[in-house]
Amino acid sequence: MTTSDRKEIVENIEYLIKENNRAAVRSIIIDTHPADLAEIIQELDDDDRDFVFSLLDAETASEVVTELDDVTREDIVSDLEMARLSEIVDEMDSDDAADVVKELPEHIAEQVLSNIEPQDRAEVEQLLDYPEDYAGGIMALEFIAVYDDQTVDDAIREIRRRAKEVEDIFNVYAIDRNERLVGVVPIQSLLIRDPKRLIRNIMNLDVISVTVDTDQEDVAKIVRKYDLAAIPVVGPDNRLVGRITIDDIVDVLHEEANEDIQRMAGITDEEILQESSTIRISRNRIPWLFISFVGELGSAMVLDHFHATMTQLLISAFFIPVIMATGGNAGIQSSTIVVRSLALMEGGASGLWRRVIRELRVAVLNGFIIGSLLFAVITIWKHDPAFGLVGGTAIFLVMINSAAFGALVPYVLNKMNIDPAIATGPFITTANDIFGLLIYLGTATLYLHYYA
Amino acid sequence: MTTSDRKEIVENIEYLIKENNRAAVRSIIIDTHPADLAEIIQELDDDDRDFVFSLLDAETASEVVTELDDVTREDIVSDLEMARLSEIVDEMDSDDAADVVKELPEHIAEQVLSNIEPQDRAEVEQLLDYPEDYAGGIMALEFIAVYDDQTVDDAIREIRRRAKEVEDIFNVYAIDRNERLVGVVPIQSLLIRDPKRLIRNIMNLDVISVTVDTDQEDVAKIVRKYDLAAIPVVGPDNRLVGRITIDDIVDVLHEEANEDIQRMAGITDEEILQESSTIRISRNRIPWLFISFVGELGSAMVLDHFHATMTQLLISAFFIPVIMATGGNAGIQSSTIVVRSLALMEGGASGLWRRVIRELRVAVLNGFIIGSLLFAVITIWKHDPAFGLVGGTAIFLVMINSAAFGALVPYVLNKMNIDPAIATGPFITTANDIFGLLIYLGTATLYLHYYA
Repeated sequence: MTTSDRKEIVENIEYLIKENNRAAVRSIIIDTHPADLAEIIQELDDDDRDFVFSLLDAETASEVVTELDDVTREDIVSDLEMARLSEIVDEMDSDDAADVVKELPEHIAEQVLSNIEPQDRAEVEQLLDYPEDYAGGIMALEFIAVYDDQTVDDAIREIRRRAKEVEDIFNVYAIDRNERLVGVVPIQSLLIRDPKRLIRNIMNLDVISVTVDTDQEDVAKIVRKYDLAAIPVVGPDNRLVGRITIDDIVDVLHEEANEDIQRMAGITDEEILQESSTIRISRNRIPWLFISFVGELGSAMVLDHFHATMTQLLISAFFIPVIMATGGNAGIQSSTIVVRSLALMEGGASGLWRRVIRELRVAVLNGFIIGSLLFAVITIWKHDPAFGLVGGTAIFLVMINSAAFGALVPYVLNKMNIDPAIATGPFITTANDIFGLLIYLGTATLYLHYYA
Repeated sequence: MTTSDRKEIVENIEYLIKENNRAAVRSIIIDTHPADLAEIIQELDDDDRDFVFSLLDAETASEVVTELDDVTREDIVSDLEMARLSEIVDEMDSDDAADVVKELPEHIAEQVLSNIEPQDRAEVEQLLDYPEDYAGGIMALEFIAVYDDQTVDDAIREIRRRAKEVEDIFNVYAIDRNERLVGVVPIQSLLIRDPKRLIRNIMNLDVISVTVDTDQEDVAKIVRKYDLAAIPVVGPDNRLVGRITIDDIVDVLHEEANEDIQRMAGITDEEILQESSTIRISRNRIPWLFISFVGELGSAMVLDHFHATMTQLLISAFFIPVIMATGGNAGIQSSTIVVRSLALMEGGASGLWRRVIRELRVAVLNGFIIGSLLFAVITIWKHDPAFGLVGGTAIFLVMINSAAFGALVPYVLNKMNIDPAIATGPFITTANDIFGLLIYLGTATLYLHYYA
């Protein structure tokens, strides 16, 4: 569905609701994929969205809720009556149900859990015990497992028995009689192999799995590296407890990239793109503005310290922005590449010096080019080749300093178990500004002292 | 395999090569997954890497080549003899083979193509005709399709026939006798349904597909939205021509996120993290440094224009960095959120004003907080509440201006079909610096003129 298709449907629905034509709205809904319905509902206003949602059967509603963004989901769920909410949660896969229940106020969550089937309740409660952002917190309990002494035919029977409940069966997992994960059989093998063969004799022994306490980012790296469609999750003693499918991994990759990008821009926690509360957005953004503000008071002190130089050589003030900005950009380029390397390549300290030296080489080259340009500009514009030399040399040194700092800081933060992504934001820029001004005005002062 | 496991294996291999113990190296290799081998090879030096690679059988070598980063792949492939290279390419899936052949010098590519099986050659040549970064350029020609008037049993037979060639069969596609895509059957349905039933009667008619000329970013959005494990690709007249599996989509998502992040940092094209050529890195990074440099000469002109103000009121120079930096950061926060919204939510101009107003509200609140702080700092530090009022008012206005600019520019670029990600880089920072200085020194000049 394209954006313009969606816009048309949204407009049609808005019109039909105004006309009170419930049947026509219902007929649009029936023809629309739940993922599209979720997008449509997100674009409707509060009353229309509750109305459309009320027309959905429980199964569709459960799929739509799973696809909604967090803000809209909270809105809709908080307006639902208990019976309806319980019915919807009951239709969900265990992992989605746990995600919804987790966000509910405690007394409502308890009521919902007591309303759903006891088996589902036990599953959701089990999942709620695992921390978010770890394999245990994103896995589902719906998967197909058979004992390794069962046959291919037994596995097919098991799939048939649970067909309605387990979607996207990419693999059947083989466990021993102690429930320990011992192998994996791709579903297509079941079609090809003799039904009487033992699972043990056809399974792949090199089964890649994660434990419930594996960080979701590491799970995503493993799935990506080994090109998996699903990964089994084991608990203590290698006992099979759950499965994470690729669609959830894609969401993790997405979330992590978004978080990294936002963090690089100096936004503390991931800001939901649909967030509309000014206070919440402000609270999330002000910490780094504050840090930058305090840091730049350091710059003000540097300038105060060099006020004699600036008074005698007012021209030096004119080039403060170009030196701060170009140095800052060189630093951000370096830190971004190092942050990405740390995030993607699991690069330890082994590559540190090679990386820093590479960044320094680039900074020397780019600094020389930009420095020569600044020399030329000052010489031509201000007819002052001597000060041109001061400016050119200073920007050259500032760029090298910024690049070195930009390359080193992420490693230091990583060592301290702080997300290095914050290094590319206001933090490094502010530090580079202070050092940059010290280098620039220091050079200008030396020049005044000895040559002017 | 953890980073420390890998490091140990790398060290063992380096030692064994020095000892000339080929058998021991080979036995390590046999036990290691190709994806891990690729990582190990990336950490070895040139000679060791060629040696280890030479020990791999053609099938493993083909899998390793597929997993290598671009720089290492180019290195290794360029050292291979024609016969060996052809043998390796012959083992690959069509899409991976096309990726490798595409990077070869033309005369070598032709030789390789003439060495591999005619059927494979035709497939690779077909794929090479599609532009990169589109569905046609990332699809594979390995998939299972059956006519909709065939039976479940026929489909199982087809899977059995092509089992060695097609991996990860998540779905069987149903085509009519004109090769047009008409339906999809999840592989698990084949296990459950009566073998004599017609595909037509069990297939899902709502098959989600893309065309060969769909941008890979849009393909990824669709796969993510509908939680697919693979998506069929159709040519003219809805004829089924290929399939893209989720592992390739994960790579696309990854590449796009990486590209966005780097672009936001002012890096022109995606810089490969293993890139080691100073010249190539420099060339990729200098354009935005240059743009920022030229832009900041604008800042220098602004300062030059206000030199009288700065001479009379030297204190005004001290707060240039804090105003530039805090305003710049507020602008980057706004533009990052807008860029992400445009990238992820297909949000058209419809949400533009709502978004800009939201950013302005946040800027007013955060600007007021930071402005009050600056007023307090100048009053306490410089005992100058009047100039404190000037500084506080200016930073308040600058932050609002930057946020508005940060929110608007990405929309404008998007409209002009320019990637809005570049807006968060040096571009917006530079523009914000110039406007910021105009606002700040303009305010200071008005103050001097009327009140001082």
